[in-house]
Amino acid sequence: MSDICVLVLDDDPPPDLDRLRGRAQVISTGEEELAELLPSADVVLVWDFTSPAVRRAWPGPGPRPGWVHTPSAGVDHVLSPEFAASDTVLTNARGVFDRPIAEYVAGLVLAMAKDLPGTWERQRQRRWQHRETLRLAGTRAVVVGAGPIGRAIAETLGCLDVRTELVGRTAREGVRGQAELPALLVEADWVVCAAPLTEETRGMFGSDAFAAMPDRARFINVGRGPLVDTTALVAALEQQEIAAAALDVFENEPLAPEDPLWQVPGLFVSPHMSGDIVGWRGALSDQFLELFDLWEAGRPLFNVVDKQLGYVR
Amino acid sequence: MSDICVLVLDDDPPPDLDRLRGRAQVISTGEEELAELLPSADVVLVWDFTSPAVRRAWPGPGPRPGWVHTPSAGVDHVLSPEFAASDTVLTNARGVFDRPIAEYVAGLVLAMAKDLPGTWERQRQRRWQHRETLRLAGTRAVVVGAGPIGRAIAETLGCLDVRTELVGRTAREGVRGQAELPALLVEADWVVCAAPLTEETRGMFGSDAFAAMPDRARFINVGRGPLVDTTALVAALEQQEIAAAALDVFENEPLAPEDPLWQVPGLFVSPHMSGDIVGWRGALSDQFLELFDLWEAGRPLFNVVDKQLGYVR
Repeated sequence: MSDICVLVLDDDPPPDLDRLRGRAQVISTGEEELAELLPSADVVLVWDFTSPAVRRAWPGPGPRPGWVHTPSAGVDHVLSPEFAASDTVLTNARGVFDRPIAEYVAGLVLAMAKDLPGTWERQRQRRWQHRETLRLAGTRAVVVGAGPIGRAIAETLGCLDVRTELVGRTAREGVRGQAELPALLVEADWVVCAAPLTEETRGMFGSDAFAAMPDRARFINVGRGPLVDTTALVAALEQQEIAAAALDVFENEPLAPEDPLWQVPGLFVSPHMSGDIVGWRGALSDQFLELFDLWEAGRPLFNVVDKQLGYVR
Repeated sequence: MSDICVLVLDDDPPPDLDRLRGRAQVISTGEEELAELLPSADVVLVWDFTSPAVRRAWPGPGPRPGWVHTPSAGVDHVLSPEFAASDTVLTNARGVFDRPIAEYVAGLVLAMAKDLPGTWERQRQRRWQHRETLRLAGTRAVVVGAGPIGRAIAETLGCLDVRTELVGRTAREGVRGQAELPALLVEADWVVCAAPLTEETRGMFGSDAFAAMPDRARFINVGRGPLVDTTALVAALEQQEIAAAALDVFENEPLAPEDPLWQVPGLFVSPHMSGDIVGWRGALSDQFLELFDLWEAGRPLFNVVDKQLGYVR
């Protein structure tokens, strides 16, 4: 029996982990026992990546896991200041969600440009009402978040001839720095948020940002809920400071049935599914197993998160 | 006063025609007086391009207009056998609708791939239900109709990494011939009809075509209603021979409120608007005025329809 202890945070771990048999001891756990098991684990797979349990249960001084993997693009739910200060390596699922999320965003953009929701609403009413819709080519988009997801979104919108600016924390080749964002918002037809959630980005889309956008602007969030000040967004929609919005992520997920966000006019609500294509769980466990091979061989891992920045550099 | 008599079929002609003042006598007419006025007109602008009045009122032997322009891509509503046999030049709006229709089709394809209608339905019910959706990249599309609209659709889907085959009447560079269609349908995830309506294409999507498609296939018609045998399409949807369909065009438009098509499960109905972006009427009258300049100068027109084929060659 191998000495590597792999702790899987989920009562129902992926069947593909059978491939570790003879190479590691795999223990699946719920949130309750996590704090107790964490210090003795070598590797932690946060398979239930909606859970903040690792962040909460992160051990104090003493033994800690050598490597934590979260099969998600964002790491905010895992990374406590103590974890960030530790030697533990953190990896994420960079690469798996890029294209699916870019397709999802392009779908939302085109659906809004062509008013497909308005057409389906009229179909329900058996009402034939011709309208003129927006030509997408030549419109302007600002994509905030210059990681692989943001870049894939910018590429996909670019191929639809949307004039797209990519905004990251710092300016570099093909990327505008965050300081330029207010000026870019003024001209935007589409504003897409695909930024990581860090202390710097929390609430970055608030009343100032929405006030800067033209009233024809449409806002899409596929990053993390707390990037957006939801109260300010709802006010901006109600006061027609912007034309429409689509949220795939929320401060509290799942959204409760009584949440008023379900019924804000001009707001589309989807259940955190933008990147989740058929087969995504298989792709995620394949990626973890690929990383495990490297870990076992003592070789450098890919997708290593810069824990100070909160994302893969 | 000029001797050129321009007859406009519409009680409400575009204001841009004021630019012809002093160059032509512009007479707008409804369907009733058309037969009487047609023989004395030099130019006919079929501004109400949903009207079959020109086809019906086409004069017998004797004087006829020299040029008829329809500001639509399809010419089936205008072209009678007698018109086709005459010397009258027929032009269409080739070029104006290509990109808008391609964007509309891409929007429908992405909305179906990502099940946006299902998400909006759940939003109405305040129901958070995560689902896995389709990765569009790598799927296969067959676009029937190799004119500028079909080509724009194929280009747009191609840039989204959909493996797209374009099918025309005859095989040529980049275009498969119609004889290959049945074999192509077998592998199609998406089948898009953007063909002109001719005696050859009428009803081309019937029970055989739907039976050939895999059950995951989704069918979109942005051509003309009679290209599709609607009874066969409804049966294919009901028997789940195909997964879904979207129709933007119908045998009888507008669709009556009592038409059963409004409520066929898996069928999206839109009111013939795929190409109609904000500003389209201006683009159409600009195009007519550009043609008029050539006509007045005795120079060759563009967008001349091959009246035997029923489209611009």
